[in-house]
Amino acid sequence: MTVSDVVELEGHIIDSGLMERAFTVVMDLGGEFDIEAFNVGESKTEESYCRMRVIADSEASLRPILHELHQSGATLADPSDATLEPAPADRVVPDGFYSTTNHPTDVRVDGEWVPVDDIEMDCAVVVSGVDRTPDGASDDGERDAVDRDGDGATAETRVLNAVSEGDLVVTGDAGIRVRPPERPRDDSGPFGFMRGGVSAERPSVSLIRDIAEAVAGTKARGGRVLCVAGPAVIHAGGGPGSAGNGFAVHDMERSMYGTSLGMDVETMEHPRKGHKHHIYTISEVVRAGGIEAAVEAGLVEEGVMYECVRNDREFVLAGSIRDDGPLPDTITDAVEAQNAIREQARRADLVLMLSSLLHSVAVGNCLPSTTPTVCVDINPATVTQLLDRGSAQAVGMVTDVGTFVPLLAEELLE
Amino acid sequence: MTVSDVVELEGHIIDSGLMERAFTVVMDLGGEFDIEAFNVGESKTEESYCRMRVIADSEASLRPILHELHQSGATLADPSDATLEPAPADRVVPDGFYSTTNHPTDVRVDGEWVPVDDIEMDCAVVVSGVDRTPDGASDDGERDAVDRDGDGATAETRVLNAVSEGDLVVTGDAGIRVRPPERPRDDSGPFGFMRGGVSAERPSVSLIRDIAEAVAGTKARGGRVLCVAGPAVIHAGGGPGSAGNGFAVHDMERSMYGTSLGMDVETMEHPRKGHKHHIYTISEVVRAGGIEAAVEAGLVEEGVMYECVRNDREFVLAGSIRDDGPLPDTITDAVEAQNAIREQARRADLVLMLSSLLHSVAVGNCLPSTTPTVCVDINPATVTQLLDRGSAQAVGMVTDVGTFVPLLAEELLE
Amino acid sequence: MTVSDVVELEGHIIDSGLMERAFTVVMDLGGEFDIEAFNVGESKTEESYCRMRVIADSEASLRPILHELHQSGATLADPSDATLEPAPADRVVPDGFYSTTNHPTDVRVDGEWVPVDDIEMDCAVVVSGVDRTPDGASDDGERDAVDRDGDGATAETRVLNAVSEGDLVVTGDAGIRVRPPERPRDDSGPFGFMRGGVSAERPSVSLIRDIAEAVAGTKARGGRVLCVAGPAVIHAGGGPGSAGNGFAVHDMERSMYGTSLGMDVETMEHPRKGHKHHIYTISEVVRAGGIEAAVEAGLVEEGVMYECVRNDREFVLAGSIRDDGPLPDTITDAVEAQNAIREQARRADLVLMLSSLLHSVAVGNCLPSTTPTVCVDINPATVTQLLDRGSAQAVGMVTDVGTFVPLLAEELLE
Amino acid sequence: MTVSDVVELEGHIIDSGLMERAFTVVMDLGGEFDIEAFNVGESKTEESYCRMRVIADSEASLRPILHELHQSGATLADPSDATLEPAPADRVVPDGFYSTTNHPTDVRVDGEWVPVDDIEMDCAVVVSGVDRTPDGASDDGERDAVDRDGDGATAETRVLNAVSEGDLVVTGDAGIRVRPPERPRDDSGPFGFMRGGVSAERPSVSLIRDIAEAVAGTKARGGRVLCVAGPAVIHAGGGPGSAGNGFAVHDMERSMYGTSLGMDVETMEHPRKGHKHHIYTISEVVRAGGIEAAVEAGLVEEGVMYECVRNDREFVLAGSIRDDGPLPDTITDAVEAQNAIREQARRADLVLMLSSLLHSVAVGNCLPSTTPTVCVDINPATVTQLLDRGSAQAVGMVTDVGTFVPLLAEELLE
Repeated sequence: MTVSDVVELEGHIIDSGLMERAFTVVMDLGGEFDIEAFNVGESKTEESYCRMRVIADSEASLRPILHELHQSGATLADPSDATLEPAPADRVVPDGFYSTTNHPTDVRVDGEWVPVDDIEMDCAVVVSGVDRTPDGASDDGERDAVDRDGDGATAETRVLNAVSEGDLVVTGDAGIRVRPPERPRDDSGPFGFMRGGVSAERPSVSLIRDIAEAVAGTKARGGRVLCVAGPAVIHAGGGPGSAGNGFAVHDMERSMYGTSLGMDVETMEHPRKGHKHHIYTISEVVRAGGIEAAVEAGLVEEGVMYECVRNDREFVLAGSIRDDGPLPDTITDAVEAQNAIREQARRADLVLMLSSLLHSVAVGNCLPSTTPTVCVDINPATVTQLLDRGSAQAVGMVTDVGTFVPLLAEELLE
Repeated sequence: MTVSDVVELEGHIIDSGLMERAFTVVMDLGGEFDIEAFNVGESKTEESYCRMRVIADSEASLRPILHELHQSGATLADPSDATLEPAPADRVVPDGFYSTTNHPTDVRVDGEWVPVDDIEMDCAVVVSGVDRTPDGASDDGERDAVDRDGDGATAETRVLNAVSEGDLVVTGDAGIRVRPPERPRDDSGPFGFMRGGVSAERPSVSLIRDIAEAVAGTKARGGRVLCVAGPAVIHAGGGPGSAGNGFAVHDMERSMYGTSLGMDVETMEHPRKGHKHHIYTISEVVRAGGIEAAVEAGLVEEGVMYECVRNDREFVLAGSIRDDGPLPDTITDAVEAQNAIREQARRADLVLMLSSLLHSVAVGNCLPSTTPTVCVDINPATVTQLLDRGSAQAVGMVTDVGTFVPLLAEELLE
Repeated sequence: MTVSDVVELEGHIIDSGLMERAFTVVMDLGGEFDIEAFNVGESKTEESYCRMRVIADSEASLRPILHELHQSGATLADPSDATLEPAPADRVVPDGFYSTTNHPTDVRVDGEWVPVDDIEMDCAVVVSGVDRTPDGASDDGERDAVDRDGDGATAETRVLNAVSEGDLVVTGDAGIRVRPPERPRDDSGPFGFMRGGVSAERPSVSLIRDIAEAVAGTKARGGRVLCVAGPAVIHAGGGPGSAGNGFAVHDMERSMYGTSLGMDVETMEHPRKGHKHHIYTISEVVRAGGIEAAVEAGLVEEGVMYECVRNDREFVLAGSIRDDGPLPDTITDAVEAQNAIREQARRADLVLMLSSLLHSVAVGNCLPSTTPTVCVDINPATVTQLLDRGSAQAVGMVTDVGTFVPLLAEELLE
Repeated sequence: MTVSDVVELEGHIIDSGLMERAFTVVMDLGGEFDIEAFNVGESKTEESYCRMRVIADSEASLRPILHELHQSGATLADPSDATLEPAPADRVVPDGFYSTTNHPTDVRVDGEWVPVDDIEMDCAVVVSGVDRTPDGASDDGERDAVDRDGDGATAETRVLNAVSEGDLVVTGDAGIRVRPPERPRDDSGPFGFMRGGVSAERPSVSLIRDIAEAVAGTKARGGRVLCVAGPAVIHAGGGPGSAGNGFAVHDMERSMYGTSLGMDVETMEHPRKGHKHHIYTISEVVRAGGIEAAVEAGLVEEGVMYECVRNDREFVLAGSIRDDGPLPDTITDAVEAQNAIREQARRADLVLMLSSLLHSVAVGNCLPSTTPTVCVDINPATVTQLLDRGSAQAVGMVTDVGTFVPLLAEELLE
């Protein structure tokens, strides 16, 4: 005895790798397939279409196959509405809740495909604007009538710890549509160069030039550039930023003592004099009452934090257990810090991740797969890990951030 | 015109590198020296002694030289009491406060050398049991009399954010004695093998055997072994532990779903089926009410967390901004988490740092240089960074924690 | 004006990624395509077929597209014979010679598809058994008649420096068929586990168990296991081997002095005593007249080289410019050493590359994409580089060879 | 019963670490010491002196201690002449031959200290200009008389494979004086910055500025800069160079096809077009008859090899077993290539090792510890390995050679 279900794939499904992935999923998970229809796009601009029956031994085997196909961008041929279940308690999701990918996603509510706002990986989807009763009875005529008068349903991602009792959470795979980004048809445009993954062979200077153009282009169009900066970055320039306590300490120590972790950054003449400067820096800024106060009091007179304060750039300093201090501006609670990062990440049009694995992972966790991202680190394993999120427009560069930033600045100032 | 001061060095000051460091400090910082006395220990067991006048152009040049010499273990020839200043406000230390090393340290209070408890790097030293008035008037005969009736002064480290208004904080360098660990005269003993730093050439299996002996010996003597475990560790065995949210999720996913980040750890047959298992694991444990509740409810039936609960081993799960969830047991506030880690670190007699840079740095920050430490990571840069704390008994191993743990367990169970 | 040509793709062209690659090649190189026929295999076991017209602006643009499609496994729809040109001089190939991939390849000679023997990357293809005149006139009836009497044409790869004047070398892309390995339909079999690329998440011990099974299975079937061993390997066990001068020196030093680069590998008690042992080892073996003589003279009494001599296992020691000595057995000429390696590589049924980048690259250069290969190194970048050859059955493991080898031996001896 | 011998140490023996090393050697190797005299240099410019009796249980234990002390710079208090033994055969050194360090060394011949020319690690020392009979009888009055008429004895290093039958080779430790470089008293001068080892914290641009000054200063003084270049270097500029076959192929491919390993280095537009270009490049250069011929024929019109030919800069291309081709200019025999490298290394006044582990190790093996050396690589383990040779003036930089070279060129051209 076998069970089966039919899924559809549409778009540039061959060169985006979707067809390959679909075949592989079915075979890896022990299923069979029967192609019921296949129309190949005959030329570059035409889309293809495939209707595939997926066959398995049992419902239990079929379920994960369909789930995987789903996550990859296939949709059930005969869509039903998404199943909604109320959350039984705060921070507790219903059994079998749907956990998101980072790709654009729609859920079907009352026959309509509703886009999921603020898409982000590993979240629940909460639907609002439908007035279900807690037991999930959705066939109540009166409520439906009310809905139709209103603005209709909306859907958004919610991290687990932000789910409240009674939230209507999507469960199962039905009524959900995921659209993984396709390979762009056209290489031009500011992010055209972002397709090669990690570019070990390409000359660094030519890649830096492209990144500078992407930054300049984004700002010219009024977009936001989010810079995630590790302590290795010294003069990262403007833009809002996500960083850690250590970055800010390091940056202000440089202004206050002319050293960085105690080393004179210009002459290196007295490498031992100041290895306590970072702790004095923290102490001074605490005494002043925070970074803004320290800038205004003239304690900090240059550097990234100074420029952020003077030019009114937002910054988030996320705390971690390895911090000294911390500074009063550092958000020490991980959940609060994630929320602050999330807010920045959602509004970003281009993200530069500079030599900061911890903060870059945190930002990457909040990004949809459609946000262009540049990852720079001297450790190839870090770059690989950061790129491995299925982002359509991401490029990694294994280079020294200490030479990258000056060369980028040179290009931007030209 | 020059200024000068006299310092003394005592102990195995040649083979511990202290003499070399002292000469280098003076020359690097632009000073001159005049050796006033030098008695070399004539044989292996005799100590040496050196009295050195340090000469500089100005008080401003002399100060950092003396400070550095101090940190390295030299003491002023003519010791005075440590200077104590009350903290002007909560979390604000007096100007010029003394910032600790991680070496055993004494401060001189009322002519007596008082050991600093809970020594840890980059802290303030707070002295209690002396009833100074806020202006630091210590020559009040009556108070002194009272002190002599009591148990005398005590001193302890205090991280900056734990300093309270009015705490008597040591400032300057006077009246402070630092004792960096010396090279042991004898290689035998359970930690005799811990001297080579990073051992790239030595066969891994032979080093693992020594580590197993150190673990077994520590437990046999009733000591505590603290294990800092990254998600790469699967069956790390007993003992209290410092880890992160991800470690616990990963461990319990394995028990609940037989997978680790969705991969069946035994057969690898269905590598795609469960990449959402970690988020379901979190959701189930949240629903159960926490790790202990999940173990008791039979949800989690094996693994490190299970064993910790069943065998009543303490564990600290420190949160970070890259966490999913987090679990209810995870301490999300960085400062609170540091305090929990600090408590574990102080009581540890042997620390194993297994493939977890973030948590290992956090633990390492709290450790005195005298606690034996083993750092295992596949990334040589991580091991180097963790060892670079002047610990007398620390050994690093660049190896795969996935083969290290089974081989260590084999040795321990023999 | 446009030019075009028609190619065909056959087999499991979707899940092997061939269709995706074909579309990507055309678009990346600025061409257009028109799908003239597409029959998708309706179930898992049926093959697919695609006939695609490739269109470009000019002959100059079309050429590289067709070349790339070729290399990826597409064939010209209307095949002609391969073009053969005689080599103008020793070591000089004709203009536009065809440079091989490492995939199974056929060339069309006199209307017949002839398999290319000893396929290897970046070689010329030399055809024998056809008696062409130097001007390449192949339509001479008399000669053809002669051919048909003989055993027919044969084709083989030839590295550039082995080409002799007059060799008939394939030029251009016509009449060549490349078959990149397809994804196996079936995961079972001894190499079924070799598909995951670099396995960071999978427990090392479970992967080592699979590798042990692949080694045991290969030997049980009478196959050859080739071990490429760096100096980090100490007791790698039997089998023919490719290694370097340093490996053999290191191995025999251990037998002769009980040390490895001067360190006592068991006790580590006297880490400094013997850092000259490696140079004495070389000197002693030179004096003895070579490795075999040193074993027979009782100078070397254990270790890999000893076992190779005693058990009559072939070994190749390839020299390099960083060698001390070298040993008399080391092949110091790079071209001769490559030839010795090539001979071993061609006969191998399973290759273990253990912690030796230089030698592993050299062996990898000689391997067809169909030879199962296991790469073990502690540096992830090394593993990635070694795997990046389009091999169908290759698996990488980022682990410590010092723990890998004992664990593998344990599994093999069970 | 104990045996003992007396050694002397002289110079800045404390801050150079020599005293510490001496104590550690004795203790590590199980000996005892008795300081018979110790005069410490009272100020920065005065040297210190130590006479130390070394005591051990047996001659067999004492020997390695004295050997190690020797290698570290101690000399026997009561020097005798070096023992000379004739080599019994070509490439075979006498039993117990003295194997060199890379530090300046003298040997005592007929009561005179003779400097060893061309000092290099792991070599034999061959003494010429003394007419010993094969049995080593050096007390023959007649011969000595002859010597005193001549220019006297000379000594030089000889790699094992260059030793000829009858060469007078130094054996044992007696009559040998090693002078490890001391810490410079003065930080100024062109190489003053070269003391920090691997500089992770220091801003890259400031370090590059110092390196540029060292290069410019060396050339201004008429010195030679030797550049060891891996394929990652594109436009390294002038100077003689040691590199490999791959470097030259890569460089000329860029000139001939505008690509590097097939990738258009400027536009990246056609990343797939030319992955066979490197093999065509080799074929074309072979056809032309070599690099110089290819430049003269106009085949190669820019790049490093072009500039070397045009500006008459020496270059050595050392072959390896991973080479394609190789080019006619590549020295395929490892021993011959080492000799060519050795010749360059000996004449170098400053060595830049740029991203080429194999060639850098080969060059490093031939360098005395007194040659200033800069190692640049993106892999920290590579830099650590290259620096670990006890060179007095060596600095490592973990950075991207693709950004390092343009920034260095910018500084040099200013």
